[in-house]
Amino acid sequence: MDDASLVRELSERIVTYLLADPRDLPVRRDATPEEVDAALRPVGLAMASGAPPVPPDALLAAVDAVVRHSVHTRHPRFFNQNFAGADVVAVLGDALGAALNTTNATFEAAPVFTLMEEAVLRRLAAIAGFSETTLAPGLFCPGGSTAALYALQLARHRYDPDIARRGSREDFAIFVSDQGHYAAEKSAALLGLGTEAVIKVATDDLGALRPESLRDALSATERSPLAVIATAGTTVTAAFDPLEPIAEICAARDLWLHVDGCYGGSALFSPRERHRLAGVERAHSFAWNLHKMMGMTQQCSVLLLRDPDQLGPCFSARANYLFQPDKPYAELDTGDRTFQCARRNDVLKLWLTWKARGDAGFAARVERAVDLAAHARDHIARHDAFAPVVAGDFTNVCFIWVPPPLRPFDGSEAARARIHDVTAQLKGALQRSGVAMLSHMPVAGLNAFRLLVMNPDVTEADIETTLGTIDGLGRDLVAGG
Amino acid sequence: MDDASLVRELSERIVTYLLADPRDLPVRRDATPEEVDAALRPVGLAMASGAPPVPPDALLAAVDAVVRHSVHTRHPRFFNQNFAGADVVAVLGDALGAALNTTNATFEAAPVFTLMEEAVLRRLAAIAGFSETTLAPGLFCPGGSTAALYALQLARHRYDPDIARRGSREDFAIFVSDQGHYAAEKSAALLGLGTEAVIKVATDDLGALRPESLRDALSATERSPLAVIATAGTTVTAAFDPLEPIAEICAARDLWLHVDGCYGGSALFSPRERHRLAGVERAHSFAWNLHKMMGMTQQCSVLLLRDPDQLGPCFSARANYLFQPDKPYAELDTGDRTFQCARRNDVLKLWLTWKARGDAGFAARVERAVDLAAHARDHIARHDAFAPVVAGDFTNVCFIWVPPPLRPFDGSEAARARIHDVTAQLKGALQRSGVAMLSHMPVAGLNAFRLLVMNPDVTEADIETTLGTIDGLGRDLVAGG
Repeated sequence: MDDASLVRELSERIVTYLLADPRDLPVRRDATPEEVDAALRPVGLAMASGAPPVPPDALLAAVDAVVRHSVHTRHPRFFNQNFAGADVVAVLGDALGAALNTTNATFEAAPVFTLMEEAVLRRLAAIAGFSETTLAPGLFCPGGSTAALYALQLARHRYDPDIARRGSREDFAIFVSDQGHYAAEKSAALLGLGTEAVIKVATDDLGALRPESLRDALSATERSPLAVIATAGTTVTAAFDPLEPIAEICAARDLWLHVDGCYGGSALFSPRERHRLAGVERAHSFAWNLHKMMGMTQQCSVLLLRDPDQLGPCFSARANYLFQPDKPYAELDTGDRTFQCARRNDVLKLWLTWKARGDAGFAARVERAVDLAAHARDHIARHDAFAPVVAGDFTNVCFIWVPPPLRPFDGSEAARARIHDVTAQLKGALQRSGVAMLSHMPVAGLNAFRLLVMNPDVTEADIETTLGTIDGLGRDLVAGG
Repeated sequence: MDDASLVRELSERIVTYLLADPRDLPVRRDATPEEVDAALRPVGLAMASGAPPVPPDALLAAVDAVVRHSVHTRHPRFFNQNFAGADVVAVLGDALGAALNTTNATFEAAPVFTLMEEAVLRRLAAIAGFSETTLAPGLFCPGGSTAALYALQLARHRYDPDIARRGSREDFAIFVSDQGHYAAEKSAALLGLGTEAVIKVATDDLGALRPESLRDALSATERSPLAVIATAGTTVTAAFDPLEPIAEICAARDLWLHVDGCYGGSALFSPRERHRLAGVERAHSFAWNLHKMMGMTQQCSVLLLRDPDQLGPCFSARANYLFQPDKPYAELDTGDRTFQCARRNDVLKLWLTWKARGDAGFAARVERAVDLAAHARDHIARHDAFAPVVAGDFTNVCFIWVPPPLRPFDGSEAARARIHDVTAQLKGALQRSGVAMLSHMPVAGLNAFRLLVMNPDVTEADIETTLGTIDGLGRDLVAGG
């Protein structure tokens, strides 16, 4: 088999995979690391020294084993993470970007894609209500944590541009809710601010930051306040911090406001759901992962900026081997306005999918996810086999399964202790069943399930099947244990 | 046309593109931003508010326009950058990774790929001569600049783990050659060390760091030396810093040694070329971009580490919603040992391609590139239309075109001034011709061409055609000017 046949065979496998009904597969085939290794034994998972080329047929058999043992995040009962059900157009757009393999750092090397990035960034900024800017209003990043990192560096640069040269000495403070993403601490450590610069602000019962607690925290600190990170869609409960009052507080003290909308930012696509982010247009920076709710493949992260003119002074290294000022259209080069040098094409898939689905299609994807989560919440409320843990009204459903003797759940310490232990076991049993996959985590001190609805191909029946399977496996578990 | 047909049509276009002879295309179609915009006008490059879905036929026509106006980095006369000619297996491996769209942060979500990463990292570390480690000896990063950033954070963490908590206050110094990559300064700014922490060390005529200059710089500084960055393959001349004496100097002072082998690290695949990195096994960290010489798509960057046990303490945020300690095989989770949270699958394409080509295939790719560059150098030496700018003996060929009245090039100031001006114009004319694409940049004070041979499909004739076209266009230019 020559390379051309191999390309055709591999491509055919990808198409077949994308067009198959994922419900015919287990969400995840249960296998130990040793079993995965054994499945790949004909080719060998390890790279042996001096290994000869693997013949194409064996390579294709290995590809089949890779697919068989991978998690099928396209499966409508994959509720495990805040991404699922990649749009097939995005998958093919991603693949086309790989085939055209270039770096998006310069117009010279990426004439279509640098223009496409600008077009998409302008539209996203307009949707968020940002004022128009001369430069493209932001940049693409390799993930939401990186977006937070860049945002805090921009905040520090605005505070004092000379810090980039002389280094950071100040005792800065960064405020984020106690439900905010850990990217705040990770970024503070990497930026040399130190994790103790991160001050956690108390949240309400749903997990949203309390503005009065932010005010108190600002008054209490002896450090120099630098930035506030507000979260639009927390990881566990999908809570939205109230952006208007937070923006007021930041404006009064001239603090940088970064909105972490990595997860919930996509609510802006829906006229019905966008109220959750009211005030986002007042942010200095806004991180938005299109690979979470919008079916983009990993990764498609955008950092929108109120003042993109700051990017050059903050990040430029003026490398004259790449950003030659005497080159045509050098002003379109994006590479000297960010930290990365070569940068993968993350825009083509988004542009193609958005064109294919239209604004209405993007709105429908978001609304369908919210509606399905509401359906799951209703089902849980109507069955005493379950109990909600946090109310919430977006795409996260946090709940517990209640063993029969403890129904209806009374919140007692004894019931909580029993449920805490059983949840982790039940999560494992569910995963082994292959019927569905969802995660568990401590919520308000209790191990709870978190069902995330991201994929518009989920049906009401998928949710009922999942909850029914949890109940069945739970009964077996407590009967057997 | 339904989604299934669209998937098939898009896939067919990718396969057709990959299997076509790229020499039938211009390397890059010359077009202004306005012309690119016009080519996409039927669909619209911009995202209009309230836009309806674009019908599939129009979307496919737009895809054709995107391809037509993109730079064909697969073209054997694309000599513009330190990547080119992606291996078709890598492109399809990348696409399969996109189809399986998961995050490589946990074994739970990526059972095959977390194991595959470990297998590939172990083999790369063995090739570099690193001692065996219990944990996987490194991690995948979104690019070489990020690898440098992580390496310097690890260096600071080794100096004093408490800096991550309390922030950076020290006047550290980082040493890198004056030909090293700008990631050093960018990282120093981002880490809060400040760009003035970066001390540039003098290089020899080929662009390699002089160990005696490093010794002098270390003695002269009043700052606290933290790390030395040695470069294995500089951007402009592909110089290799002498790692053995640098490692000696670092060992004597207990300094962190980071080897930036993003470009030249792949020489290790070749028994004939690996001597260039002698001593790399003494590094604390080693950055290696497989998307440069090895035909991986953007991006495939690895940071190898002598002591991977440091990753957890340096980067962990212990997020209990994701890295539940009571989850099976939690010890295989990589996500709490790096900065990123969700992480794209960059390993599948490398694993598949390496299996398909074998160790000998990888060695041959590197050696072919070096041999082709030597052929270009010979051609330049034999024709007084050209003159070499820096000798070099790896994959970069830096040269000037000499206008007929100035042949043979005598190095005079008058000749240099004329050539300096003509090079940029000639680069533009060559690019507009579509015959070949290579970059120009100041080398030793003179605007020179840099021809990078990365693609094994280049032939000797491609090199001769390129040089012949430069000469022809140059003659037209000076005759016309």
